[in-house]
Amino acid sequence: VTEIALASPRRPRAGLGELLTVFRGHPSLTRSDVAEVTGLSRATVNQRLEALLAAGVIAPADGQAPRRGRPAERFAFNATRGILLLVDIGATGMRAALCDLSGGILQERFTPSSVTDGPEAVLPEVQGLFAQMLAATGHTPEEVEGIGLDVPGPVDFDAGLVISPPIMTGWDRYDIRGWFSRHYPCPVVVEKDANAMVFGEHRLIHPDVANMLYLKLGTGIGSGIIANGQIYRGADGAAGDIGHNQIPIRDDAPEPLCRCGNTGCVEAYAGGWAMVRDLQAAGLAITTVDQAVEAIKAGDPTAVRLARRTGRILGAALSDAVSLLNPRVVVLGGQLAAAEAHLYAGLREMIYRRSLPLATRHLQIIPSQLDRRAGVVGLGYLVADHVFDPVRVEQALSG
Amino acid sequence: VTEIALASPRRPRAGLGELLTVFRGHPSLTRSDVAEVTGLSRATVNQRLEALLAAGVIAPADGQAPRRGRPAERFAFNATRGILLLVDIGATGMRAALCDLSGGILQERFTPSSVTDGPEAVLPEVQGLFAQMLAATGHTPEEVEGIGLDVPGPVDFDAGLVISPPIMTGWDRYDIRGWFSRHYPCPVVVEKDANAMVFGEHRLIHPDVANMLYLKLGTGIGSGIIANGQIYRGADGAAGDIGHNQIPIRDDAPEPLCRCGNTGCVEAYAGGWAMVRDLQAAGLAITTVDQAVEAIKAGDPTAVRLARRTGRILGAALSDAVSLLNPRVVVLGGQLAAAEAHLYAGLREMIYRRSLPLATRHLQIIPSQLDRRAGVVGLGYLVADHVFDPVRVEQALSG
Repeated sequence: VTEIALASPRRPRAGLGELLTVFRGHPSLTRSDVAEVTGLSRATVNQRLEALLAAGVIAPADGQAPRRGRPAERFAFNATRGILLLVDIGATGMRAALCDLSGGILQERFTPSSVTDGPEAVLPEVQGLFAQMLAATGHTPEEVEGIGLDVPGPVDFDAGLVISPPIMTGWDRYDIRGWFSRHYPCPVVVEKDANAMVFGEHRLIHPDVANMLYLKLGTGIGSGIIANGQIYRGADGAAGDIGHNQIPIRDDAPEPLCRCGNTGCVEAYAGGWAMVRDLQAAGLAITTVDQAVEAIKAGDPTAVRLARRTGRILGAALSDAVSLLNPRVVVLGGQLAAAEAHLYAGLREMIYRRSLPLATRHLQIIPSQLDRRAGVVGLGYLVADHVFDPVRVEQALSG
Repeated sequence: VTEIALASPRRPRAGLGELLTVFRGHPSLTRSDVAEVTGLSRATVNQRLEALLAAGVIAPADGQAPRRGRPAERFAFNATRGILLLVDIGATGMRAALCDLSGGILQERFTPSSVTDGPEAVLPEVQGLFAQMLAATGHTPEEVEGIGLDVPGPVDFDAGLVISPPIMTGWDRYDIRGWFSRHYPCPVVVEKDANAMVFGEHRLIHPDVANMLYLKLGTGIGSGIIANGQIYRGADGAAGDIGHNQIPIRDDAPEPLCRCGNTGCVEAYAGGWAMVRDLQAAGLAITTVDQAVEAIKAGDPTAVRLARRTGRILGAALSDAVSLLNPRVVVLGGQLAAAEAHLYAGLREMIYRRSLPLATRHLQIIPSQLDRRAGVVGLGYLVADHVFDPVRVEQALSG
């Protein structure tokens, strides 16, 4: 596998792009540090540092501004020379953020919004939030070096297109990049929501965990996978689709109909929309997933009983995923994750009952620490990695 | 992720190790090719080629032996300066192979053997096959540069240990490397069988497919995963355990007991041992999985009916894995895969019924082309990659 990357004549070795990656991985470095980390000669180090300084992508480190006639000795990635704009587009609301070039979030905005209104309605709303945040922080569109969006549907990551989304009317293959190019002259990254979320949890909370799963329990059910330290998107960007797995329930009730057209899917039992359906059928006056979660947290007996059953159903689906993927950490996020204790008990019960001990011996099942910010946090790192991809940097600086 | 690898000061850039990897990825290269691929100066290229030539790991390419006084112009990885020894240890037999340093197999041996006899009985049998192959090809133990074993159980790959194997009595944490060090002064790689098999199919048959799944249908049921072009082992080497997933069967029969102690596992319906159980219960005089496959292929109505049902059950389990992993290719291997048509019909039926169209639109479900050789073929590439890992080579040549 290594040899495929190396065999490409277009990939330069230890060039400016990779040197910048070294800076992005350290708070600051001296010339000697750079020589040691890269194995480059002192003369080459000096020459490459000059090029990175001239491009403004690194700068003398804090408190180390050069005195007249003496060159700076310590350098750092210049995270403040530009900004990134991010938006996590959910089914019923969107969270936008403005961050520096290292992914550190400086501003956030949330607004209700319906993804089913389609891109021609939703993207202007996104642009409105972006413009507000730029104004609030005194930045201009020219300073935007990258844009990231995540959406609740499958994405062709390389093309930046939403593909065959089950719930996103009008978004199929819509030219999101083209739309933003009217406003910003920079790359646009489009990602599936659960992938952005698992990446945020991975990079900020669990950087040493190479194999993890993020289960998004919202209106629908999806998941994001980190495999061998990378986002795993699968062959068509459809990986992580756990919500339409069938689960073995042995009772006499007919299998519920799912939004996807099949019956008996995990989501048709345990998705937020299914919980609302079941609570309404039991006579509770609720219409939203958040209200269902409130009823559970308030201790309503019907809601609590449903939450426990939902936990067991999610646990049955998750135990299959745990057996297949053997993650070290499973993070539970999304609105339903707030139902915590009642959901978790049933969920853990099923996983430990079903999965083989080797796969669960060191398994952690924990709530999302980033909660509703996971998407924008993950997008920040993802867009930064894209903008400062070594090959891209090399081409920009040597071209 | 890139930055984690780069941040290590111990990883040299574009050194001898990576240069050797470039040679391993090409049939042969001129000095100019090397300069172009690596971006190194001509002087540095000449110096590094000398070091690799002196170590014997590259050689002047065929028909390009240097004339007196004129340096060779074309060089190639020296695959014949040593050999690798490999063995695929199955539940009831083992296949051993001797290959060159590029993974090209030169000799093979098969012998019946019972893995449950434990390592103290099985490893001397392996060593017997290795010694036979060395003698047959005129090689000495000193020429062995790497050894690879795969086993039907979970493996801690870095430690080279079998961990908590359900069916491998006596192998748990047995010091396989220590045992072989008595005979051969070289690295020993231990891998789970389905991982070696999926790697063989990936590298030799589907080198451009970055996401694929190998389903091993033998006495038991397991799988191996290629994710983003790499073997995916999971956090504890337990990934790919699909045989003990529960499948949703709605009938009135009690769920069958599995070897793992649970009931209703895929394997308890569709594993080779379960087919033998069911055919015996139906009055057929068979005792082995191969006999069951023969009965299916001979058109015995009871066996054919069971094969179709087995296909649908495997398809139900596989459709969940396809939804989660979104592979481009699913390869079916193992003894039961020989039951082809009857099995495949039911299997495909369930996958296309259950999985969302995006995940199956370009999906290929195909029989293993390497068949029973997949394990040793995969081990050959795996051991070669390990022996010629850039960091290892760098340390050996510059130490």
